[in-house]
Amino acid sequence: MERYDVVVVGAGLAGLAAARDLTAAGKRVVVLEARDRVGGRTDHALTRAGVLETGGQWVGPTQTEVLALIDELGLETFRQFDAGQRVTVLNGADTRRLQEAPSISATGGAELAAVIERLDAMAATVSLSSPWLTGDAELWDSMTVESWLTSEVEDEEALQYLRALVPGIFSAEAPELSLLHFLFYVKSAGSIADLLRIEGGAQESRVLGGSHLISERMAEALGDAVRLGTRVHTISHDADGVQVVHDGGEVSADHVIVTLPPTLAGRLRYEPPLPAARDVLTQQVPMGSVIKVHLVYERPFWREAGLSGQAFSTVDPLSLTIDNTPPGTDHGVLLGFFEGRHARPLSELTPAERQKIAVDCVVRFFGPEAAEVLEYVEKDWTMEEFSRGCYGGRLGAGVWTQYGHALAAPVGRIHWAGAESAEVWNGYMDGAVRSGRRAAREILG
Amino acid sequence: MERYDVVVVGAGLAGLAAARDLTAAGKRVVVLEARDRVGGRTDHALTRAGVLETGGQWVGPTQTEVLALIDELGLETFRQFDAGQRVTVLNGADTRRLQEAPSISATGGAELAAVIERLDAMAATVSLSSPWLTGDAELWDSMTVESWLTSEVEDEEALQYLRALVPGIFSAEAPELSLLHFLFYVKSAGSIADLLRIEGGAQESRVLGGSHLISERMAEALGDAVRLGTRVHTISHDADGVQVVHDGGEVSADHVIVTLPPTLAGRLRYEPPLPAARDVLTQQVPMGSVIKVHLVYERPFWREAGLSGQAFSTVDPLSLTIDNTPPGTDHGVLLGFFEGRHARPLSELTPAERQKIAVDCVVRFFGPEAAEVLEYVEKDWTMEEFSRGCYGGRLGAGVWTQYGHALAAPVGRIHWAGAESAEVWNGYMDGAVRSGRRAAREILG
Repeated sequence: MERYDVVVVGAGLAGLAAARDLTAAGKRVVVLEARDRVGGRTDHALTRAGVLETGGQWVGPTQTEVLALIDELGLETFRQFDAGQRVTVLNGADTRRLQEAPSISATGGAELAAVIERLDAMAATVSLSSPWLTGDAELWDSMTVESWLTSEVEDEEALQYLRALVPGIFSAEAPELSLLHFLFYVKSAGSIADLLRIEGGAQESRVLGGSHLISERMAEALGDAVRLGTRVHTISHDADGVQVVHDGGEVSADHVIVTLPPTLAGRLRYEPPLPAARDVLTQQVPMGSVIKVHLVYERPFWREAGLSGQAFSTVDPLSLTIDNTPPGTDHGVLLGFFEGRHARPLSELTPAERQKIAVDCVVRFFGPEAAEVLEYVEKDWTMEEFSRGCYGGRLGAGVWTQYGHALAAPVGRIHWAGAESAEVWNGYMDGAVRSGRRAAREILG
Repeated sequence: MERYDVVVVGAGLAGLAAARDLTAAGKRVVVLEARDRVGGRTDHALTRAGVLETGGQWVGPTQTEVLALIDELGLETFRQFDAGQRVTVLNGADTRRLQEAPSISATGGAELAAVIERLDAMAATVSLSSPWLTGDAELWDSMTVESWLTSEVEDEEALQYLRALVPGIFSAEAPELSLLHFLFYVKSAGSIADLLRIEGGAQESRVLGGSHLISERMAEALGDAVRLGTRVHTISHDADGVQVVHDGGEVSADHVIVTLPPTLAGRLRYEPPLPAARDVLTQQVPMGSVIKVHLVYERPFWREAGLSGQAFSTVDPLSLTIDNTPPGTDHGVLLGFFEGRHARPLSELTPAERQKIAVDCVVRFFGPEAAEVLEYVEKDWTMEEFSRGCYGGRLGAGVWTQYGHALAAPVGRIHWAGAESAEVWNGYMDGAVRSGRRAAREILG
């Protein structure tokens, strides 16, 4: 049997970042990846407008680990297009307000700002390393985000706006999240503005050529240490080491780093079985539901009308759009998301049916020219066998306080990484990189 | 490859009941069971007081399917011992009230009765076949049971009492359950009283010799069709049939019935992968946490003091006890449950440490004689690799309305059974039997 210092399960950003640090420290490492590609929840498609990212794509200024990595790998970033007016669709009073009118009433806007300030202040008190030890952890983990919003927000438009923000961040609905998890996630990113903003926030920049290049460059440097099409199903572990069994054989090592999201990590077989806390945790960190769609046009016609290509709707199934045109093309590209409750029934339709629904939405947002689609590209992440949802795993009510301590704590020689286990920028590419590097430090230190 | 009409995965009550009906209808059936015994979440231990059940044990008068089965199998039931005073420990006003005093204040008692009446009335409106279509489904699924209780219950003792009832029913805490799931479960059983009561309720009777005998008798009749120690890991399915691969080989059939609780069913590999709704559902039906302990005494000393052996405490880790003495012994047996938040940290201790904690509790409840334990028997269900928790899976906020339709709906030739998929007496032995018979009817019909 082949013997290594460390086996890494999963060649996404977390696994490759871990393998990179371990290799640099002189460790013998192998990375086992079920897919026939690296990159995990980052992926791409080649279209007539160039490379489009079908998974995670943005980086922001406080995401310092991923930015440093991008730089070290010789990659470059460019700014997200962000000029022109936004389209906001609210049905607070059974009306649709487009950019010509204020997107929210003065009363609603004032309450929205006040509520966001309150949530930021609450988030500031959350312990990132031990959210369950936060002063109000028990209270905040006993309720859903929806319960808090309905009890605290009076203005109907502000309430709708806030409810609709949730799937935009989590690809899950307000009832599906613990308030404590929401606040942890805000703190992990910095603030609600850090999560939502383009300039200065999580959507500020993109990677030239596509975010998948971060993983590809790391994998290139690791060479034969990365094995694609190698699906792990069993991890045996004892005082002497670990044996990791995949469909085509097995490898042994001193340590293993499992980078799969908790729900998929829970589907591996462990011998001996994991402690109860870790196992039961993996039973309840479900993945979000999102279908990411790209619409390629002859040109970015919305820009000529003074529009940014950004839409935010509390009623349409395509609830968020943004101009995702890459540099170096005359074509225009709109990116849209079907998220949460919208994504779930649409997952059962055909691509052509989804395309029609997406086009109907962008025509409502940006006018009849939006019907002239040259190319449609989509990715339903819930149907990806080796992700089973995006953007990531979430914790519902009661989970952080009962099981949060098992999210990243090693079990003997088994270490856990992946964006869900990150303290900073949890759920993001930056968090994934951080989590892999942290797991590597656990082994090296 | 061996070919059958139906492969059943799991030889608990659901799987064996399904196999029994299918065999009676002339189908060729094989039942594959990972454990070296049948019975799933029913099991037993032999003690000096006789057989004690370490898993599910009670049956009640409206559980007509399991009662009929018990009768058909030539088994008998006997009444749960229920004479004498109960011990109730509340810390509403920082006092402990034992049976000498009223267990709850008049105000608290009145509110408790009124709240239970309201919850029963709400539960009566729930659709058992489609809970997500219930009139108030969206609202009730948007909040936790804890949120509803804290907003609706004023009396502090009544609130504590209700909060403590939840883990007694679900082995999970009030924040971990959707209000809609709670109400569904109540409706599924009949009423809150049906869930809580001994006489006339879910704890009325026991099976002479142990509830595991129901499965054992069914398995005996099925003979070689039941294969123990046969752990299934992959199910391939297409228009022609199913192939079920286990550690020692594979079998093929026209249909497969998977009786594992959703979280464990989600850990099997399916080729092709399951539809998103079914897969993501299995990511979020976590099992409860319970450690069931038995304390065997020289004699049932509590009876001589006029006590029933029943205790209910809102503060002690052993939150529920009951006299579990089987017929035909002079010994006395107390049964106790560590549930939910109490079970989780205790799972990490040794049996001796848990015994000490259990004994400390029963001494507080029943006096110093309770320290004279002859024999201690425990079962931590979260550590059982092939259950990973008991009594069963629960649905947190948002799950019923988003994914409930995937709980029992067949996926092609794959049928789902198990107590979590039952409409009537969901979560109970009776529901398990019903679910297996329903899955058999899906195939036969």
